[in-house]
Amino acid sequence: MSSRSFRSVFVVCVAVAVCLFSHGIFAQEQGSLPLMPLPAHVTQGEGQFLIDGTFSVALEGYKDERVVQGSKRFLATLGRETGIPIAAETAADKAGFTIKTGGPSDAVQQLGEDEGYRLEVTAAHVQLTAADPLGILHGLQTFLQLVRVTPQGFAVPAVSIIDQPRFPWRGLMIDAGRHFMPLPVIERNLDGMEATKLNVMHWHLSDDQGFRVESRQAPLLQEEGSGGSYYTQAQIHEVIEYARARGIRVVPEFDMPCHTSSWLVGYPQLASGAGPYQLPTKWGVLDAAMDPTRETTYEFLDKFLGEMTALFPDAYFHVGGDECDGKEWDANPRIQAFMKAHGMKDNAALQSYFSGRVQKLVAGHHKIMMGWDEVLQPDTPRDVVIHSWRGPTGLAAAARQGNRVLLSNGYYIDLNQSAAEHYLVDPLGGDGANLTAEEKARVLGGEATMWSELVTPENVDSRIWPRTAVIAERLWSAEDVRDVDSMYRRLAVVSQKLDYYGLEHNSFTLPMLQRMSGELDPKGLEVLASAVQPPEGYEREGLREYTTLSPLNRLVDAVPPESDAARKFNELAVLIAAGKASEEQWQKAQGWLVRWRDNDAKLEPSLAGSELTAELIPLSHSLAQVATIGLQALDDLKNHRAVSAEAREKNLELLKAAAKPQAVLVDKVVPSVELLVKASGRQ
Amino acid sequence: MSSRSFRSVFVVCVAVAVCLFSHGIFAQEQGSLPLMPLPAHVTQGEGQFLIDGTFSVALEGYKDERVVQGSKRFLATLGRETGIPIAAETAADKAGFTIKTGGPSDAVQQLGEDEGYRLEVTAAHVQLTAADPLGILHGLQTFLQLVRVTPQGFAVPAVSIIDQPRFPWRGLMIDAGRHFMPLPVIERNLDGMEATKLNVMHWHLSDDQGFRVESRQAPLLQEEGSGGSYYTQAQIHEVIEYARARGIRVVPEFDMPCHTSSWLVGYPQLASGAGPYQLPTKWGVLDAAMDPTRETTYEFLDKFLGEMTALFPDAYFHVGGDECDGKEWDANPRIQAFMKAHGMKDNAALQSYFSGRVQKLVAGHHKIMMGWDEVLQPDTPRDVVIHSWRGPTGLAAAARQGNRVLLSNGYYIDLNQSAAEHYLVDPLGGDGANLTAEEKARVLGGEATMWSELVTPENVDSRIWPRTAVIAERLWSAEDVRDVDSMYRRLAVVSQKLDYYGLEHNSFTLPMLQRMSGELDPKGLEVLASAVQPPEGYEREGLREYTTLSPLNRLVDAVPPESDAARKFNELAVLIAAGKASEEQWQKAQGWLVRWRDNDAKLEPSLAGSELTAELIPLSHSLAQVATIGLQALDDLKNHRAVSAEAREKNLELLKAAAKPQAVLVDKVVPSVELLVKASGRQ
Repeated sequence: MSSRSFRSVFVVCVAVAVCLFSHGIFAQEQGSLPLMPLPAHVTQGEGQFLIDGTFSVALEGYKDERVVQGSKRFLATLGRETGIPIAAETAADKAGFTIKTGGPSDAVQQLGEDEGYRLEVTAAHVQLTAADPLGILHGLQTFLQLVRVTPQGFAVPAVSIIDQPRFPWRGLMIDAGRHFMPLPVIERNLDGMEATKLNVMHWHLSDDQGFRVESRQAPLLQEEGSGGSYYTQAQIHEVIEYARARGIRVVPEFDMPCHTSSWLVGYPQLASGAGPYQLPTKWGVLDAAMDPTRETTYEFLDKFLGEMTALFPDAYFHVGGDECDGKEWDANPRIQAFMKAHGMKDNAALQSYFSGRVQKLVAGHHKIMMGWDEVLQPDTPRDVVIHSWRGPTGLAAAARQGNRVLLSNGYYIDLNQSAAEHYLVDPLGGDGANLTAEEKARVLGGEATMWSELVTPENVDSRIWPRTAVIAERLWSAEDVRDVDSMYRRLAVVSQKLDYYGLEHNSFTLPMLQRMSGELDPKGLEVLASAVQPPEGYEREGLREYTTLSPLNRLVDAVPPESDAARKFNELAVLIAAGKASEEQWQKAQGWLVRWRDNDAKLEPSLAGSELTAELIPLSHSLAQVATIGLQALDDLKNHRAVSAEAREKNLELLKAAAKPQAVLVDKVVPSVELLVKASGRQ
Repeated sequence: MSSRSFRSVFVVCVAVAVCLFSHGIFAQEQGSLPLMPLPAHVTQGEGQFLIDGTFSVALEGYKDERVVQGSKRFLATLGRETGIPIAAETAADKAGFTIKTGGPSDAVQQLGEDEGYRLEVTAAHVQLTAADPLGILHGLQTFLQLVRVTPQGFAVPAVSIIDQPRFPWRGLMIDAGRHFMPLPVIERNLDGMEATKLNVMHWHLSDDQGFRVESRQAPLLQEEGSGGSYYTQAQIHEVIEYARARGIRVVPEFDMPCHTSSWLVGYPQLASGAGPYQLPTKWGVLDAAMDPTRETTYEFLDKFLGEMTALFPDAYFHVGGDECDGKEWDANPRIQAFMKAHGMKDNAALQSYFSGRVQKLVAGHHKIMMGWDEVLQPDTPRDVVIHSWRGPTGLAAAARQGNRVLLSNGYYIDLNQSAAEHYLVDPLGGDGANLTAEEKARVLGGEATMWSELVTPENVDSRIWPRTAVIAERLWSAEDVRDVDSMYRRLAVVSQKLDYYGLEHNSFTLPMLQRMSGELDPKGLEVLASAVQPPEGYEREGLREYTTLSPLNRLVDAVPPESDAARKFNELAVLIAAGKASEEQWQKAQGWLVRWRDNDAKLEPSLAGSELTAELIPLSHSLAQVATIGLQALDDLKNHRAVSAEAREKNLELLKAAAKPQAVLVDKVVPSVELLVKASGRQ
């Protein structure tokens, strides 16, 4: 983990960069550097490097196929970013951009390889230097983020960047178990990961609702357990190559002993229950569990792990281990007898026994086991990596016990939290801040987790991006890079750049609105969509019943997890409530509210025409009402008009009602209007 | 050509359908059938067939792999159209949709195979019947076009359709020679072709600027002649399979003896000039020509044609033959001597000799030769198919001479003409209308031609779609299906449906505007874009110099060939000028004009920030001025105010100036405003 020793240096450098940034020198309007993750050290120079059709790249130093291919992809992406035909060939001389690679990377990408790079841009030349191909790949992405259009054409500002990550494990977990995610989804998200310098794709490949990999050892896994949707081994190879080319490790997860219904359909002999099992259509924590007491279970798993550890070259192998409800164990007399005979007090002890056995199998296949929080027991071997989903306390406990750990608690991007919320979660925050330096060194980083109960290939990009870019920054940049305004400013630019990588988080909404409404130009629905969000956390499942068969084609599925319009309106409302808004900001806020108020009359008549939009009628009406209250509050504030306590309370009551989810959607304008109403009472 | 004998029946049926349509029974607002191409016979029934998660398809009759795969793709497309998870497996029983295939198609798809089908939809069941798999594939697409969202959910209206094409050859030519078009471009356009029942992809695979196929016989063709951008033989196989699965033949074209610079780079011994040759960066008619006088030319071609006729299984083989300027022949004394010795009066005679030799080579490899107009000579064998690009007169002449013919004149979709213009061009229009029945039977159909000098993979979809759908209708539907209003109404729906096939004609504009402006939300640029179009015909090349190296990343490249907003505004202007507009239409027209007028003040300040948009400043200003004139005219008309002749003339002068292209763009609002100004003078 060579990168760690540099950390203190980075912190200092980044502090300088952030300081400059917050003083507006880098502010977007003034030709800033909208980089994400923010590099360790940035020094801006004079002038800019122009990009035209003569642009080419020369490779120097160590010859590496990954650098050659990465450079070609870089040129192709640059072509998309600029629309300039750029030959996708590297040139030996006369190139304006020189790439110098110090030496090789490991044949199989390893945790802790050097990922640093140095990028020097002057008006005349670009020089990218790194110790190995990984750093080169990262530096190329930094350059692409710097490209902007100017009065002289496309250009990159003169800059000197020295960069290296804070944490060596920066991951995105994709759950292909619940909703299968076809190869194009995986590949374009790997492109997005490369763009944001993430380096681990954790591939959640089995769960109750689906087993997603072709096994030749145990073919009934996919034949009976996938509903026909699984990755062939050739496709797995393709993805691993695709990821490696982008500096990304692929860590597979086969979740066991629970979350295993899909295994048990084809292999009921592994089960603790009587069976037969079917692929469940329900979500949630199900009872199905492997039987930890039979030797045949481990014989099966040993063969299976032998096959899968050979298929996936990464040194780490994730075996899940989360959320056992233990009901099948409780109900099985043979298992109860086994526990008694072996002095196991409870199901945790039984699971611990299972984890220990599996760990030995995994180690026998020369892999390092990973598991979710639950696998940690006092006797867990020290090399097992604990993946913390339940919170910072568990993470700190594992680190204290001597195990290496990863954080995902706080990075659950399926829960529709804001970018800011994820951004401010630090792997060394909470109890982690109290760790000793030695213990802190065991914190490898974290992973954004894209659980897929309520996403499909159509909208999954929107749940991952752009918010995962801020988690990528958290894991790459210095600990004190925490300016939320700067983050949102840069995120907007990076989000648009991710379009060049084929991601669909910006383009998915309109086609879904067209489909659900049957309208070619669903303008009114767009206005409604701008104000609402899916409920946060696990509230959605409580509002409506969802199964694997539920169409996810309604407004809640078509809007991003975080409403940009509502967030920006909230910024205005805060300023107005504090008496700090400019006239332009007042007008902007009023403009939004007028738009939301007047939309209902135009939209409402068409909503009943579709089964999918009919349920939006009350929501649209409510938004208009909220906006009307907001406009009244603005007017009261503007005119310093005294508002009676009763009138205010009545409005606050109405807002309270409007804050409740309708059609499984939350009106995110409500809190801002509440702020205005409250402010109007203080004058 | 079994389909031809049914033509008279279709004409009658379609006349009924069109008649119903024009009376509004099928009007979009009233639950119409937005089908394109319009089927031969449509009878609407009562009720609708609901589509939900239980939807499945059962296959009956002849078992055919193309039907199995086509049904799976159909289910996947239906899933995208509805957002409902539909299992992509066909079910034997209990299916709501039964497909009955009469018998097999030919192993290699042939010209004139039966493409008819019968689709019966009731509230309870769907039955699709066809004599062979081709008809089934077409019928599935008809069903997909019928899907709409209703208060009961997604549904298809009860309907009985009997359908069959008018012409057996309905093609789209894609020029991959000028700008290389990567496989995804080809494949998504094949999907669009399937959706609109086109059945021939004519693949223009070589031209001066690039030779695009891997030849193993003559590898310098691609090694020296492609700049690295060519299709491998494996990719050719993939495309042919992909097309065949969709009921589409692939006819390759290798253009010779001219348009051959790219061949001559690697094989200068084929040339009439002295060489050496380089890949030209210029567009247009170049001088490079093969040497028709040397036996070695034919020896080379015989081997090459042997390889390529084996690679492409279709019975037809296109050898181009267009646009020889003859300069290299004139300048070569040896060629001149040859011509004299053989009594050849002119270069046409020399080319005729070449065509005759090549025809024998093609025939020797058991293929039927096709060529552009120029290959037709009095002694051209009767089985050669003439591809008419120069006009209906040449087409009729070929048919009279006994050759079969295809029309592309009028279908040049690279020339930015309106959908209506293409729509009204008929293969049997012009001189073709004077042909005898026997001669008319030689008119096989036509092809939309996507020449690629001024398109890239990024915007090529927008030049092909949606306009090619109206050419598809011209070639499939009855001759008297010519209602332009109905066409535009249905086209809007079909255009949106093409999004489900992955086509980018609706989504390409915004990313290009973002890129050229550097703005995340380029609203002002969108308003400007809504009013302008690329110049029609070949005017663009006269306004600016373009080479193979020119970036195609400006506004002219980012707007569709036909402005929907300007077209709709024109409809309003026509009504207003005729005194037939409703109050709502007046307001709508005024709304557009206000938007265009007020846009300049908001947009102008940002345009100078980018080299790519700076040139738009005068255009934006001019649009505002045009809109101001339009608003004045509206106001004059509304108030029946007399307008002085001088004032009117002054405005017409200004409009005349504004009608001239600026920044290689045409302001399409000008003619409508001119109409209003002229009308204001008549009162």
